[in-house]
Amino acid sequence: MRRVSITDVGMRDGLQMESQVLTTDEKVAIADLLIAAGVRRIEATSFVSPRAVPQLADAHELIGRLRGKNATFSAMVPNASGARRAVAAGVERIRFFLSVSETHNQRNVNRSVVQSLENAAEVIDIARSAGVGADMAIATSFGCPFEGDIDPAKVVAIAERCAQLGFDAVALADTTGMATPRIVERLCDAMRVALPKLPIALHFHNTRGLGLVNVMVGLEQGIERFESSLGGLGGCPFAPGASGNISTEDLVHMMDELGIDTGIDLPRLIVAAQRLEAILGKVLPGQVMKAGPRLALHS
Amino acid sequence: MRRVSITDVGMRDGLQMESQVLTTDEKVAIADLLIAAGVRRIEATSFVSPRAVPQLADAHELIGRLRGKNATFSAMVPNASGARRAVAAGVERIRFFLSVSETHNQRNVNRSVVQSLENAAEVIDIARSAGVGADMAIATSFGCPFEGDIDPAKVVAIAERCAQLGFDAVALADTTGMATPRIVERLCDAMRVALPKLPIALHFHNTRGLGLVNVMVGLEQGIERFESSLGGLGGCPFAPGASGNISTEDLVHMMDELGIDTGIDLPRLIVAAQRLEAILGKVLPGQVMKAGPRLALHS
Repeated sequence: MRRVSITDVGMRDGLQMESQVLTTDEKVAIADLLIAAGVRRIEATSFVSPRAVPQLADAHELIGRLRGKNATFSAMVPNASGARRAVAAGVERIRFFLSVSETHNQRNVNRSVVQSLENAAEVIDIARSAGVGADMAIATSFGCPFEGDIDPAKVVAIAERCAQLGFDAVALADTTGMATPRIVERLCDAMRVALPKLPIALHFHNTRGLGLVNVMVGLEQGIERFESSLGGLGGCPFAPGASGNISTEDLVHMMDELGIDTGIDLPRLIVAAQRLEAILGKVLPGQVMKAGPRLALHS
Repeated sequence: MRRVSITDVGMRDGLQMESQVLTTDEKVAIADLLIAAGVRRIEATSFVSPRAVPQLADAHELIGRLRGKNATFSAMVPNASGARRAVAAGVERIRFFLSVSETHNQRNVNRSVVQSLENAAEVIDIARSAGVGADMAIATSFGCPFEGDIDPAKVVAIAERCAQLGFDAVALADTTGMATPRIVERLCDAMRVALPKLPIALHFHNTRGLGLVNVMVGLEQGIERFESSLGGLGGCPFAPGASGNISTEDLVHMMDELGIDTGIDLPRLIVAAQRLEAILGKVLPGQVMKAGPRLALHS
């Protein structure tokens, strides 16, 4: 039976988009429900400025409370300082990020792609010294809201540099939902040719309804790692009201129906998504959490 | 360049689920915007009991006002009486429907599948006498909310009977969003073997997030007709809050990105969806109407 690994990124990529700031207790409760459902990889937070992202201001305390639970918790870091804070808090994995698009990288982290790659070298040194794994999220891999189409060769060149630096995997991130089947196929092809051994995760957003379609193309391309958020929590900074991350329950439901093992129990995952909806007091975009699995029959 | 045909069914399958009853003027305005966007097949209404479905009580007047416009307007009919009313109103196409599932057919139209097939023979006679085309929508083709999985052989047997009776096409309808890639593949395969010449339309709902994924599988199977609703208007009677029909804009956007011609102009279609949202005063599930096409860039 084919297996894929799913990382839930809702506690980072989802919560950072919410106006409501969850308490650390609430976050731990959600993490516990994810773990109870069988989720084993959780991107828990980001070590960014608490003023810039108050939703994630409890990063240090949260990681402390999550350590030792039955999952691998990672945290995003925007620079060497964030990496040091993450390591000090006790994360098991660090994720650094940059954009392929020069314009997006400037807007997002106020530096050039070359400067971000210099920071990446510092981050990997910090991770190595602390004995924690590090991977790279490559934003705007499938398109940029400022620059438009992105040359796959540019993504490959950045991924090659990341592999040289020592990152043990890359996530190709569809930051604003611009991936399409053709683009996913082309980029996965180019990555496999250039870096056949580097593990690749696909991080899709459902901003234009194509999230799960793109996952299907990734599966055809042999990809084994996918990222999603509980309930589809999140959004798109460029399109108010549009969806963000694909929903973990919808992804698991699709994998179940394709006969692909995720190790995740769908009914328990739906419980987690419904709890998250209750905490936030708003309707989340996930579909399966509303309709149930397809064979949840009516009498 | 490959072409597919899209039928917008929102004015029937969408509006019948709305608590708000649109005026005939509002419906005509939406139809005009669909036509301006290049939509050439519109399922406009259903000739059912005005007491049971007050949203569609203006069926006769609506068809009268739509006749002569630059699109083919069809109407659904539940029985011979509805077919006579549809013909009298001047429809260009009639669509009859039944469920593969005995339980769903009983709950939906209060008769057995065999009785519905007898009605089908009456309906096709009425259509033939009037010189209008007729096709059959086969509900619960991919699963039934009461009976669960549906044997593809049962769908094929009904489709064969429809072809014998003289229906010129069938729509395989995923009434409550139970279709999955494997099931779509299996059923399309079985249909092609048994009825290689009968045109098949796929009518998917996005109840569990798989609508466009299933369209992709249909495309791989050579299907050339798809059904969707403007803005994703509609819902699921079995799951309050869940989505219904796939969104026409999201479908057209995907086809555009696959290099498949629909004859529909996406920006104009988005205008139509936004107008529908304004008329209804509620947020519709369509994604592209919120985010715009992928290359609508930010400055």
